Amino acid sequence: MWCVSVVKMAWEWGNGKVENLYGRLRGKVVDGMLELKKLGEEDPRRVVHSLKVGLAITLVSTFYYFEPLYHGFGSSAMWAIFTVIVVSEFSVGATLGKGLNRGLATFLAGALGLGCFYLAESTGHVVQPILLGVFIFVLAAGVTYMRFFPQMKKKYDYGLMVFILTFCLVSVSSYREDQEIIDIAQKRVITILIGGLISVLVCIFVCPIWAGDDLHNLVSRNIDKLGNFLQGFGDEYFRTSTEGEGEECDKAVLEGYKSVLNSKQTEESLANFVTWEPCHGRFKYQYPWHQYLKIGSLSRQCAYRIDALNGFLNSAKAPPEGIKGKLQEACMKMSKEAGRGLKELSEAMKRMEAPLSAEAHISKAKTGAMKLRSIMKRGLWEEGNNVNLVEAIPAMTVASLLLDVVSCTEQLGDSIKHLSSLANFTTNKLKPEPLHNNQITQTPQPQPQEALQSCESHNSGHHHVITINPTPTTTNQVS
Amino acid sequence: MWCVSVVKMAWEWGNGKVENLYGRLRGKVVDGMLELKKLGEEDPRRVVHSLKVGLAITLVSTFYYFEPLYHGFGSSAMWAIFTVIVVSEFSVGATLGKGLNRGLATFLAGALGLGCFYLAESTGHVVQPILLGVFIFVLAAGVTYMRFFPQMKKKYDYGLMVFILTFCLVSVSSYREDQEIIDIAQKRVITILIGGLISVLVCIFVCPIWAGDDLHNLVSRNIDKLGNFLQGFGDEYFRTSTEGEGEECDKAVLEGYKSVLNSKQTEESLANFVTWEPCHGRFKYQYPWHQYLKIGSLSRQCAYRIDALNGFLNSAKAPPEGIKGKLQEACMKMSKEAGRGLKELSEAMKRMEAPLSAEAHISKAKTGAMKLRSIMKRGLWEEGNNVNLVEAIPAMTVASLLLDVVSCTEQLGDSIKHLSSLANFTTNKLKPEPLHNNQITQTPQPQPQEALQSCESHNSGHHHVITINPTPTTTNQVS
Repeated sequence: MWCVSVVKMAWEWGNGKVENLYGRLRGKVVDGMLELKKLGEEDPRRVVHSLKVGLAITLVSTFYYFEPLYHGFGSSAMWAIFTVIVVSEFSVGATLGKGLNRGLATFLAGALGLGCFYLAESTGHVVQPILLGVFIFVLAAGVTYMRFFPQMKKKYDYGLMVFILTFCLVSVSSYREDQEIIDIAQKRVITILIGGLISVLVCIFVCPIWAGDDLHNLVSRNIDKLGNFLQGFGDEYFRTSTEGEGEECDKAVLEGYKSVLNSKQTEESLANFVTWEPCHGRFKYQYPWHQYLKIGSLSRQCAYRIDALNGFLNSAKAPPEGIKGKLQEACMKMSKEAGRGLKELSEAMKRMEAPLSAEAHISKAKTGAMKLRSIMKRGLWEEGNNVNLVEAIPAMTVASLLLDVVSCTEQLGDSIKHLSSLANFTTNKLKPEPLHNNQITQTPQPQPQEALQSCESHNSGHHHVITINPTPTTTNQVS
Repeated sequence: MWCVSVVKMAWEWGNGKVENLYGRLRGKVVDGMLELKKLGEEDPRRVVHSLKVGLAITLVSTFYYFEPLYHGFGSSAMWAIFTVIVVSEFSVGATLGKGLNRGLATFLAGALGLGCFYLAESTGHVVQPILLGVFIFVLAAGVTYMRFFPQMKKKYDYGLMVFILTFCLVSVSSYREDQEIIDIAQKRVITILIGGLISVLVCIFVCPIWAGDDLHNLVSRNIDKLGNFLQGFGDEYFRTSTEGEGEECDKAVLEGYKSVLNSKQTEESLANFVTWEPCHGRFKYQYPWHQYLKIGSLSRQCAYRIDALNGFLNSAKAPPEGIKGKLQEACMKMSKEAGRGLKELSEAMKRMEAPLSAEAHISKAKTGAMKLRSIMKRGLWEEGNNVNLVEAIPAMTVASLLLDVVSCTEQLGDSIKHLSSLANFTTNKLKPEPLHNNQITQTPQPQPQEALQSCESHNSGHHHVITINPTPTTTNQVS
């Protein structure tokens, strides 16, 4: 993209449009700089990660500069540099996972490569290359096939690739290298261990970025987004909000739920990284991370219903007055209370407290649902004016979907309560526990949250709604 | 997992449970073998891919065995082997993308590394390592930061990593290596080009697996799955199907749509790979692949509505008789016709024909929708028995969601018609064009399709519904 535009500009320059070119080049550079800045502001941990990678690579490249270190390993020291470059990932879990995969695979494949080499060597110089070729073919094809196993692919994909790589290195290079084969295998294992160690140490001890924190924040933020939609939905659907200024910011908050729809793969990869991480900060040994995937799956179910609700926001006309009067109160109560309940759940989860205050809201939402059912039973049909009733169908569908959402909310509440008992969350509701995890960077609140803050200022009686989110997690961070 | 069970078994063996151990070990081995076999049966291209990787690695390792080839490159020939191992991916697009990334990044970074080395060398022996260290730090941190750019991450992530790697290799090793630095840089570029070329040639000319085919099949299969649900939904909801034998296989077919909900990332990565592929088989130069993402996104919107409908299948009681009589005919017609329409769309897309026959079904579904609206306007309320009406609410929600689904179907139809005009699909409806692409492996029909075949045998008058799917695509294939 950049390349194309540079070539295009060069062409124009050839045609003599120099003055125009200068302005556009400056524009491009300024745009690029602004984008770079935005990227860092969205998540300052990206800058931290980049500096950490630079640091680790510079550290490991001192191997080359210092005489005594270099003499031990010679050009094999390059493996240590490569290991650092390849293994350094955004989160501790991903780095540890890759590092352990690489270390273990190198060790095992080195041993196997040695074995195969000695076996082939014993057959004499004519058969040896053929036998080595057969070994390599069988092993490469077999291990490549193993990579299709879903369980293998999930956790050991990188290790399997390194296994093939090291096996080929040891068994093939031993055929030609003038050095001892044992020496090659040993140097490769040691340099890779050194590189992995430096990478892991820098990753853990210099501003660590934990996949566990990301997963925790992602799952709780997603629930918060669903809550935002439900809190705003009633006003938006029954057109009770004052039109005008607030409109656009409402829209951005409402549609925040859309990122929840496609959160599955991000959650799963974070949950995979988490399995490699040691206990840290607030997350103790054997922390029930598996429960997060269940909560995430329930959130998505809820989000699918909400997407159906959103369809009514965008397409349908306002419900007719007669119906509106009947349904509005119960629907708005359900929607608001379910939304507050979800936001309380999200808050409680974020602070790792038992979701006590959420339960009250969820049970209010359930009361609203019962009321709605009884209204639908009694009141709605008494008038019997058939023309209005057909216009009421969208409104009734909305009501029915809301009933569905309330039951989803209830399930989410149960699931988070289960998490809270599994993970021994505190029950100290009134005095929020300060965050223990001082590694989390305090960042300005992301856009949608800010929008909410200004939109919902009339809601300020409910002090739990507006909070500062310590670590914004975007799906791009899983690098 | 395997490791843990092996250790556990070894422990038990230590405790003398030898006879038990033997049986379990045999069981494990048999299970593993069965799983391996199943993996290959699900998609035989996995076996082909593994053999191709084995072949490419064996080919490139002959560099080491043949005297004349070895003498040209020496131990640098190892880079060619590494390139083959790292670049060989499942699809042609992924392999080409990685290969081009690696080749271009190596070339550019080699040149930059040389430049930096000469710059540092001119400063004298004390400053040189410090300056090289600064260069490495700045470049590593800067390029790592660039990897966070969404556009960069999508297409050039691997290239950026190789860029750091090669830069470090050239600029650092030149400080120590007794060889000429130009020689190192040149050898690395040439061996990597050779490795990349072998990998790409094997990938393209030995049973190629095209990401384009996968994307084409995935998107059309997803539409087919939605069609399956809608075709079965009416019977299932109004409980008109004969209970018993058919029940379970219906369930599997109906819930096939669930994989559509989370198809976004697979579609996007396939669409990314496709951009690297040359035109091939049925897909001509400048084939409108971008349209597939739009169709995929509409499919998911439809799937969210269908998930809401599925909620009613699982939870609600059968609708009361009065309502059932009124709504059943129109709802079943809408659902069936929308389902048939989707299946025709999927078929037409798969065969690359203009979706002519689908239009008839979609317009029938729209007629059904109009009829349903008029029934809701007139007939439903005349009786005025309030008790039944509240029980009718789920049924009415279902009807309303079906109306929504019909409009989604219409949009999908328009979108596929747009694709058909962009890609110049044939309009020869009656005589299906034979598949040009002889690289596609003919495989037995996947499970859900088979189930459908037996379930829907009463539908056999409609000959377009049941077809053999040439290339089953699972989400695991994006390796």
